Amino acid sequence: MDKKDGNVDISAMEYFFNPHSIALIGVSKDIRKPSGRSLNALLKWNYTGKLYPVNPHYMEIHGVKCYPSLLEIPGDVEMVIISVPAQSVLAALQQCVVKKVKAVVLFTSGFSEVGPEGKALQEQVTQLSQKNKLRILGPNCVGLVNLSNSVMASFANIVDLKPVYPMSLGFVTQSGAFGTLIFAQAVQAGVGFSSFVSVGNEADTEFSDFLSYLLTTPETKVIGGYLEGAKSGAKFRKAAQNALKLKKPILIMKVGRTRAGARAASSHTGSLAGDDKIYDAFFRQMGIIRIETLSELTSFVIVHRGGRMPAGNNIGILSISGGAGVLMADKCETLGLNVPEFMGETRRILESYLPPFGSAKNPVDLTSAAVAEPEMLGRCLRALVADDNIHMIAVAMGFMAHSAPILAKDLIEIYQSTTKPIVLTTYNLSSSDVIAKAIKSIEDAGMPVLTDHLHSIQAMSTLAWYSAKVRCAENIKIDKQAIKPDKEGEKIIDNPDALSEYEAKKILSGYGIPVTREALATSADIAVESARKIGYPVALKIQSAQITHKTEAGGIKLNVVNDAEVRVGFKEVISNAKKYMLEAKIQGVLVQEMLKDGVEVIIGTTKDPVFGHVIMFGLGGIFVEALKDVSFRITPLSRVDAEEMVSEIKGYSVLQGMRGKPSVDINALVDIILKVSRLVTDYGDTIKELDINPLVLFSCGAKVADAMIIKK
Amino acid sequence: MDKKDGNVDISAMEYFFNPHSIALIGVSKDIRKPSGRSLNALLKWNYTGKLYPVNPHYMEIHGVKCYPSLLEIPGDVEMVIISVPAQSVLAALQQCVVKKVKAVVLFTSGFSEVGPEGKALQEQVTQLSQKNKLRILGPNCVGLVNLSNSVMASFANIVDLKPVYPMSLGFVTQSGAFGTLIFAQAVQAGVGFSSFVSVGNEADTEFSDFLSYLLTTPETKVIGGYLEGAKSGAKFRKAAQNALKLKKPILIMKVGRTRAGARAASSHTGSLAGDDKIYDAFFRQMGIIRIETLSELTSFVIVHRGGRMPAGNNIGILSISGGAGVLMADKCETLGLNVPEFMGETRRILESYLPPFGSAKNPVDLTSAAVAEPEMLGRCLRALVADDNIHMIAVAMGFMAHSAPILAKDLIEIYQSTTKPIVLTTYNLSSSDVIAKAIKSIEDAGMPVLTDHLHSIQAMSTLAWYSAKVRCAENIKIDKQAIKPDKEGEKIIDNPDALSEYEAKKILSGYGIPVTREALATSADIAVESARKIGYPVALKIQSAQITHKTEAGGIKLNVVNDAEVRVGFKEVISNAKKYMLEAKIQGVLVQEMLKDGVEVIIGTTKDPVFGHVIMFGLGGIFVEALKDVSFRITPLSRVDAEEMVSEIKGYSVLQGMRGKPSVDINALVDIILKVSRLVTDYGDTIKELDINPLVLFSCGAKVADAMIIKK
Repeated sequence: MDKKDGNVDISAMEYFFNPHSIALIGVSKDIRKPSGRSLNALLKWNYTGKLYPVNPHYMEIHGVKCYPSLLEIPGDVEMVIISVPAQSVLAALQQCVVKKVKAVVLFTSGFSEVGPEGKALQEQVTQLSQKNKLRILGPNCVGLVNLSNSVMASFANIVDLKPVYPMSLGFVTQSGAFGTLIFAQAVQAGVGFSSFVSVGNEADTEFSDFLSYLLTTPETKVIGGYLEGAKSGAKFRKAAQNALKLKKPILIMKVGRTRAGARAASSHTGSLAGDDKIYDAFFRQMGIIRIETLSELTSFVIVHRGGRMPAGNNIGILSISGGAGVLMADKCETLGLNVPEFMGETRRILESYLPPFGSAKNPVDLTSAAVAEPEMLGRCLRALVADDNIHMIAVAMGFMAHSAPILAKDLIEIYQSTTKPIVLTTYNLSSSDVIAKAIKSIEDAGMPVLTDHLHSIQAMSTLAWYSAKVRCAENIKIDKQAIKPDKEGEKIIDNPDALSEYEAKKILSGYGIPVTREALATSADIAVESARKIGYPVALKIQSAQITHKTEAGGIKLNVVNDAEVRVGFKEVISNAKKYMLEAKIQGVLVQEMLKDGVEVIIGTTKDPVFGHVIMFGLGGIFVEALKDVSFRITPLSRVDAEEMVSEIKGYSVLQGMRGKPSVDINALVDIILKVSRLVTDYGDTIKELDINPLVLFSCGAKVADAMIIKK
Repeated sequence: MDKKDGNVDISAMEYFFNPHSIALIGVSKDIRKPSGRSLNALLKWNYTGKLYPVNPHYMEIHGVKCYPSLLEIPGDVEMVIISVPAQSVLAALQQCVVKKVKAVVLFTSGFSEVGPEGKALQEQVTQLSQKNKLRILGPNCVGLVNLSNSVMASFANIVDLKPVYPMSLGFVTQSGAFGTLIFAQAVQAGVGFSSFVSVGNEADTEFSDFLSYLLTTPETKVIGGYLEGAKSGAKFRKAAQNALKLKKPILIMKVGRTRAGARAASSHTGSLAGDDKIYDAFFRQMGIIRIETLSELTSFVIVHRGGRMPAGNNIGILSISGGAGVLMADKCETLGLNVPEFMGETRRILESYLPPFGSAKNPVDLTSAAVAEPEMLGRCLRALVADDNIHMIAVAMGFMAHSAPILAKDLIEIYQSTTKPIVLTTYNLSSSDVIAKAIKSIEDAGMPVLTDHLHSIQAMSTLAWYSAKVRCAENIKIDKQAIKPDKEGEKIIDNPDALSEYEAKKILSGYGIPVTREALATSADIAVESARKIGYPVALKIQSAQITHKTEAGGIKLNVVNDAEVRVGFKEVISNAKKYMLEAKIQGVLVQEMLKDGVEVIIGTTKDPVFGHVIMFGLGGIFVEALKDVSFRITPLSRVDAEEMVSEIKGYSVLQGMRGKPSVDINALVDIILKVSRLVTDYGDTIKELDINPLVLFSCGAKVADAMIIKK
């Protein structure tokens, strides 16, 4: 299952969600016990496959024939739910192997979460699973639920909750208890789940396997997850890419953002929360929506249920309360939505409907006049729908008994007349059947209804961001054709020795990345000759794989202007280097052109244990050091990724040109980032770290002034 | 009322909240109409003062004698509620003057919010009020409510809601409709209001008047507000200072954070939302808690009701769900709370109680074992209470029927045994009388209970921030003794002409701010003589009040190293300046010491229309221009203010020393900021803008390299 390309064998996963037969080993008669709850729920919700309780102490449970052992069950068994104690788990699994079971849900705890002994036991579970192609969920999980066919393979109390329709959310969680809490609260908020999976210790199957599987089920329109740390970056990436293609959003509550959170996550599930900045970059790159609160999940699912995507970022706001309108407008801009002022025809029409103390600008302030005259809302909303410059609309309205039927009729009619996303926030402070009925009819017509205007704006902004990602993904291509480095570069990279600056730049140059004109001089004569060819002034730099801090070693001379100075300088840097580190193997002195002034930036790569090679970009010097103003992306990068990582640093305006300076050559920069991405992809197993520091950007072109490559 | 020092005449405000008699002009019999709702509520909630409905069409309303006019009421009338149309308002107010009424609540709309005519009418209301010392609330407001004595002077439907106890929140709003919505939703969340005031167009009384008043009432323990823009910065500041002294927190939802929001606010109430950064600085400086959402208000009020303040920023977390614990830990660090890992005795005790798969680190993960064994929570909580390194505790726990009584007993006992703030988050997904009773008993014992763990953390972090502000405020002194500038400086500042760099620095120097050694030379000979005195190398700078961009004018020579160069340079800068601007009045050439390398920063002041002189601080050059990395404070500043504004910029680490450089002299910087604050306070009416750019900071000391002062 652990394929390197991140692909998941969906057919094997199928048995977890659509088994024709389920056996329950260690099942209890007591429906309040974890070991009793699953069978009870399977019966209660009318699971249609075959059920085989397994427990030597009973002849039957709840009227279903009970077997003394798995092996004594007559027909095939596709799925087994195990809730025996840890010490009996291996024996039970071995029976599953004999019985040719396809999938096991393993509730039992007492594995890697309890220490070295449990860890060893879990290792045996993993080996057994992999050797016998037996897919296992868990151990130490609350199981899974498929609400579309009543596969209630869980002991969490969520199996007793009434399903909510329409089903749309598939949820995968690394925390059983917390996932259960999210499930229950989301159901209360009106969210319909298709499936729920608690992955436990991930001895065999992991978080991303279930993401990949759920994407293939038609009931699942959107996926949610609680994640502390991913096991396989490749699988996670593949799932995210498929999701974007299928236009099924993934929303993830990723914890461990802070040091305290990361430490807690490692105590909790043993996950390495990983570098949060890398996760953050991964999510942005892959179009995964990162959420912090439950309401972000529930309101997005409800808004997404409408099935509409905004064509752009412009929102129109209609509100009964001026204050609420202002807050919504603030929230929109904070979250990246535009609230364009209405002009021309739209403005004229709005003004003709509104009282003199209303506002027709955007947000539209209907004022309390809309209480007395509920038709005003529909009139104004029609004007916003007709405005081509508005891509989505948020309506915030109080419903009262006298106005509710009129509002509902207008809203439904208008919603059905357009394909623009519209979200309604209702303020219902009194309870009334008339109001409830009106709101139900609006929901039934497909229009998303929420009760908090800021949640509505949050969901709309997320939808707009996601829509842009989907549009963009349709055009993204990652060039997988390896760039053939020139022969010299290839020879160097295959050489097992450590690399000097000169060699690192040869490799970069072989990938078409522009570097300083330079030559390696092994004698003062060669240095002079090289300097003349390159043209004065030049820089002299000691070349030794052992000396990484050349300045500190006194191994650099800048602005060397003539032959005589070259000769003196050559001797000086060599003698300084020898004083600094006697054992250093000196290759020679690099004679290098002096670059004219430009903007210095840094491009670096590191190998992340989960995601592989990660590229970092930032402005040079103080920006990186004092402000940590850097961006990350996971390789391989698309052009859009490279463009985004350049534009998302806070100091981007420095690249665009300040104080009358022209913009630097951003295209050249993007090209170089992409070539670095290719290089570390092609030589991913050879290169551990790569650092270009600085890359000097000019208004036309760019050049690497210094570089370092560290091999494994 | 509009005193310059920001003090408010509380005795005059008293009549709004504790009138012995209320007349209602324009009152209606129809209790659904705005003009009918207030009288109905006053009767319903048993207002104990005298009530005088005024309406020529009725003899009585709801059994209360009705008068044809205000003037025919026999006794005194302290408060009048007016709901007649706009055109009849002035006549009604004139009757109030004759009747010696003290306070008027003016519901009527149709004033400044509807355009120039309404604005003129409102101007008349303002004048009438000021001339006759008649305090007016409104117009265009929903009125006010004092829940402690049933003064229901409002037509909003909130007058029908049942009060919640204990009362603690006084709320002031610039948006009537939205304030009403907040009130109703906060009541649903269990928040008890003491008073509610909708200030409308603020023709007479304003937002801050009510802040100041509410602070004096014992029922009001905490103040909330919805604000689009303050009228008087001085009053706002005074109210905030009093609040801090009285330890009554102010929480403000200030809108207009973004361009769209500010535009909407200006459409809505005509407020100038002002520069949001200035407001943000003001709030931080004054200990005002800025909120974005309703839940921040309600959860803080509930946590604050506990009456406890944390002694520091360390929080202990106890959670039934590992996942919830991780999320809470993340939120804590994001919001500035520390989640220290438990060590020593506390760790040992926790480990003895927890199952092997629980975590004793912090957050403490009780795991589902705490469901079967509810006593575990109490045992672990006692360990946290006993740990001196923990200043506050957040507990997140699911209550079930079997465990609720045990949990309640333990929690109450522990809560009463300590003075540390503890907040409980309960997850109650099933409804049960046993659970409800248990939670009620915990609340009755004074312990704050919320239902969302992130809201609990948010409220705790706010409480910790506020507590630190209160502690700090106790030690803050602003030195009000004017520094006497030296005579030369005083002469210059009193001179009505524009100022040159030389003169600006003389003024700064007069305030004890160190500036470059320099002399003004009116001839080449004097220049040479000065240069010798100062010591080579020197800089030469043209001095003319008309030439503000000296570099652009070719008016600067740097690193001038000898007498000959001074002579040449002197002529050159003068001739360049004349070419650049023929009409410029040239004072001479400033001969100035060349400063050694240091860190360049900027200190600037501007005059904000609401808050007066505001000081800005930032790192020089690209930091200010590209990153807008600056901080603000309102003058006068305390030392703490100055220290905070230095440390809160993102580039603070640059001042602390980077790349092996020593830290700059931060004390010298803080001193200079304080002296600038004094200078613009002393000469607030003379100085419009002041700019020190750059101030060069050294590891010991600092010097102003260039400065500009613009007078009114």
